[in-house]
Amino acid sequence: MTTTPLPPPAGLQPVPTPPPSAASSAPSSPPALWALVLAGGSGTRLWPLSRPEAPKQLLALTDPERSMLRLTVDRLAPLIPPERVLVLTAADHVDAVREQLPEVPPAQVLGEPAPLGTAAALGLGLAWLRARDPSALMAVLSADHQIAPAEALQADLARAAGLARAGWLVTIGIPPTSPETGFGYIELGEVLPPQEGGDGRGRRVARFVEKPDLARAQAFVAGGRHLWNAGMFAWSVAGIQAAFQRHLPRLAATLDALTAAASQGDAAFADALSRLWPGIQDRTTIDYGIMEPAERVACVPAGFEWLDIGSWAAVKETLPADEDGNAVLGRHLGLDSHDNLIFAPDGRLIATLGLEGMVVVDTPEALLICPIDRAQEVKRLVDALRAGGGMG
Amino acid sequence: MTTTPLPPPAGLQPVPTPPPSAASSAPSSPPALWALVLAGGSGTRLWPLSRPEAPKQLLALTDPERSMLRLTVDRLAPLIPPERVLVLTAADHVDAVREQLPEVPPAQVLGEPAPLGTAAALGLGLAWLRARDPSALMAVLSADHQIAPAEALQADLARAAGLARAGWLVTIGIPPTSPETGFGYIELGEVLPPQEGGDGRGRRVARFVEKPDLARAQAFVAGGRHLWNAGMFAWSVAGIQAAFQRHLPRLAATLDALTAAASQGDAAFADALSRLWPGIQDRTTIDYGIMEPAERVACVPAGFEWLDIGSWAAVKETLPADEDGNAVLGRHLGLDSHDNLIFAPDGRLIATLGLEGMVVVDTPEALLICPIDRAQEVKRLVDALRAGGGMG
Repeated sequence: MTTTPLPPPAGLQPVPTPPPSAASSAPSSPPALWALVLAGGSGTRLWPLSRPEAPKQLLALTDPERSMLRLTVDRLAPLIPPERVLVLTAADHVDAVREQLPEVPPAQVLGEPAPLGTAAALGLGLAWLRARDPSALMAVLSADHQIAPAEALQADLARAAGLARAGWLVTIGIPPTSPETGFGYIELGEVLPPQEGGDGRGRRVARFVEKPDLARAQAFVAGGRHLWNAGMFAWSVAGIQAAFQRHLPRLAATLDALTAAASQGDAAFADALSRLWPGIQDRTTIDYGIMEPAERVACVPAGFEWLDIGSWAAVKETLPADEDGNAVLGRHLGLDSHDNLIFAPDGRLIATLGLEGMVVVDTPEALLICPIDRAQEVKRLVDALRAGGGMG
Repeated sequence: MTTTPLPPPAGLQPVPTPPPSAASSAPSSPPALWALVLAGGSGTRLWPLSRPEAPKQLLALTDPERSMLRLTVDRLAPLIPPERVLVLTAADHVDAVREQLPEVPPAQVLGEPAPLGTAAALGLGLAWLRARDPSALMAVLSADHQIAPAEALQADLARAAGLARAGWLVTIGIPPTSPETGFGYIELGEVLPPQEGGDGRGRRVARFVEKPDLARAQAFVAGGRHLWNAGMFAWSVAGIQAAFQRHLPRLAATLDALTAAASQGDAAFADALSRLWPGIQDRTTIDYGIMEPAERVACVPAGFEWLDIGSWAAVKETLPADEDGNAVLGRHLGLDSHDNLIFAPDGRLIATLGLEGMVVVDTPEALLICPIDRAQEVKRLVDALRAGGGMG
């Protein structure tokens, strides 16, 4: 942690390319919208490209040049400039993230000492931001989602911020394109009127639904009233802080202490973090711990294409398929080979004959071969390697 | 071709470790046994390990240290020392062969200007040897066979040489272990008596049988009277020369001219070879051109284990299988993976999940993946690469 003093609150500092709504420093200016980008996770299901020292969000998986984190921050820039971006990552990756995002002030790359669930993680970002700008609005995004077009995301974030300013805890839901059983779903309620901050698209959340079985997921897709819960949120600092106090009061007290420390500078914050983090008892998710019990929860149905890059099967979806259905990054010669993912960024020739529906990932350290429909099980290989003391 | 003068005939030169039968230089000494090792072929079915500039016989495929050619020469050494080894290879590989076999006199590594079939190839070795030692016996072996134990091979070669000395053209046949349809077969006739050079194992060849269909191959295996024709021979220089004159007279005339040139030294031989080779019309196999029509053809049933390393499926047979039936050279982590060949000599980790019955060959230039039962088709990949101007 550097000892750079905290900059002054957002409303007082010069912003290089301020959006119109943040240009004024008058007392009546609207609250600033910040982004908290979650860039944690070890990405074991994308082994061997993703590794403990280089997790997926720091890799160029879906773009030849830019990492998923870099793409995430770039996608926000017109609405939320880097001066208002917080990144939360594993403590081990703080340096790598700062290197990838030189335009984000170093103090805004926060290292989570150990993963304790998303409630604590988002609370950590909240605690820091509350010291910096207690009137802020806060959008939460993940660094391992592929989203396009960026303009649609920005529009939905602005829409969600409008609801957040009106006191809603907002989740951005994804209209489902297939009956996924690996996601939770959001059941939509009534459309929120303008006096509630709505613009005709925002909906009250009727309820959150845990991961369904296939039949139920199929019904959800057919019915049109359920969206995927993608873990994308917007709320005001005050609103989410109140929800923490009500639903996770012990964690809220710890966050209060962290906010107090953050007000005293980076060193005090780092010290408090390492002291208080291990004692956190509320090791739960933001969905289960806050969003499900909370009132005034709204949903903005996403107007953008969305893909959770959670496995090699998802990576395959991000790449164009050739005439044989093969998605190729690198050099591939295939005979009688169909519907494979060939991921060989180093450019070594991958020659396949009679290969069907497999994932082939070629990295300098290791080669992976497995059926695409078993891509979720790659974690088992990583576990086996770790158990054997090998590379993982 | 170097200009090293030809050494004196074998009977007059000092032989470092002479076998008892060759120790005497008296006129009554038995004829010397030479080996002609065929090390041609581009080995396209073992791509990507085998490549035009490094064909399979020059590679360490079945042994971590020694190439198949090196193993072949070492296997002969107690019976046929390197001073009496001829190696026939593609002209492009002469230098590489000389480097691998420093103990073989450089002039005895012969380069075939272009492949014209085994009749011409063996004739080339014959023409050279006839100039050097017209009374010699000559065994023909291939550099891409795996044979063990070496002592059994030596015993069978000595047995074949005894028959060759008695005027037989001898083939060493392999007792079939499976109904292969990719080999020709040898039908055995009567056992040859001692006055014909036999020791109770040599048999007259009743006939050669072309590659059979499966039903016939199964009958051959069950019947016990048919052996695989493995292209391993023994004959006297005089005996095979007479057969060339009778069955391929035009080729025999060309060989006469080559022998005359060889008698004048390496430069004259090289010059004659480049001049005469393109005009050879008898572009046939030794089996079809000589052995099938010839009389006095004998067979020694092999007392050794034999494997033609003609494809990755054969390489798999040379490696021990682990408990999941995987044959591994290199580092492999397999979950739910069975009956694969993992060939990764550079030691990069190959991790497989749910992989069944596939060949995986990992080389610095390229990676190959194909089903084991389609290993014969790897040549199609090489053809496609050549057609595309790529690496082959």
